[in-house]
Amino acid sequence: MNILDMCDSEAASVPVEATAERAIRAMLDRHVGAVAVIDESLRVAGIFTERDVLRRLSLGERDPRKLSVREVMTTPVEMATRATTAAEALATMVERHYRHLPIVDDDGRLLGMLSIRNLLQAQIDTLTRQLDQARSVVL
Amino acid sequence: MNILDMCDSEAASVPVEATAERAIRAMLDRHVGAVAVIDESLRVAGIFTERDVLRRLSLGERDPRKLSVREVMTTPVEMATRATTAAEALATMVERHYRHLPIVDDDGRLLGMLSIRNLLQAQIDTLTRQLDQARSVVL
Repeated sequence: MNILDMCDSEAASVPVEATAERAIRAMLDRHVGAVAVIDESLRVAGIFTERDVLRRLSLGERDPRKLSVREVMTTPVEMATRATTAAEALATMVERHYRHLPIVDDDGRLLGMLSIRNLLQAQIDTLTRQLDQARSVVL
Repeated sequence: MNILDMCDSEAASVPVEATAERAIRAMLDRHVGAVAVIDESLRVAGIFTERDVLRRLSLGERDPRKLSVREVMTTPVEMATRATTAAEALATMVERHYRHLPIVDDDGRLLGMLSIRNLLQAQIDTLTRQLDQARSVVL
C-alpha cells in the first residue's frame, strides 16, 4: 500500500499570503490538525499545525488577522514522496515529533497530507490481515 | 494490558481556577496535546486540548491571561476507568472525535490521560506479538 493511499481525502491547504486566521479557519472547517502552505509556484513552502497555533498564536500577543501564515508556519518542513515507504515516513515523524507529513510530487507540489494516525491505522490493518493469513494456515 | 499501562507517564493537569494561559503553557512544557482540569474536590472537571485552543482562543478575540481554563475547557467530558477495555476506549474516541480520554478512579480523580495514539500503538504491539506466535506455530 502506497502512503498516498493512506491519506484522508484531499489535503487542506492555503496560499502563503493567506492570513493566519484563514489557515486556522481551514483547519476548523476541515476538522484537521494541519494545513499545507503553498507558494506562488504552487510548491509546498511549509506546514501550519495546531502545535504552531499553540506555540506562536495562542498566548494572544499577535493578531492572526494581521499576520500572514508565512510568518507563523513551520518551514523548512520534512516531506515525503510517493516513493517514501510507510516505515520511513513513520521513522521521520517519530524522530522529529511531527504528526503530519506532506506528500509531494517531483516538482514539490502537494499530493496529500499523511498523519501519524493514518500510518498507525494502516499498520494495524496490515498486521490484522497477516494474522488472519497465518492463522488460516494453522487451521 | 490495562489502559492505564498504555498511558504516557504522569498526565498533565491544571486546577479549574488556573488561567487559560497557564493551561497552554502546561501543554507546551509537557509536549502534550491535552491537560486535565481538576476541580476543588480533586475530581476531573473537564479537559482542555489543542483543539479547544484552536476553536476558542486562536482567533485572538479573548485574552488567555484573563480567562480561567474553566471558561474554555470541554465539559462534560467522556472518561474511562481502569475497567474500560482498550476497544471500548477506542470506540468512544473514534465516535466522539476525541484524541484524549482521562482515566479516573471511583472518586473521579485523575489516574492517567489516554491518547488515541497510545491505543493504536498498543494494538500494534499486541498484533505483532500474536503474529509472531501464530507464525512460530506454523514453523
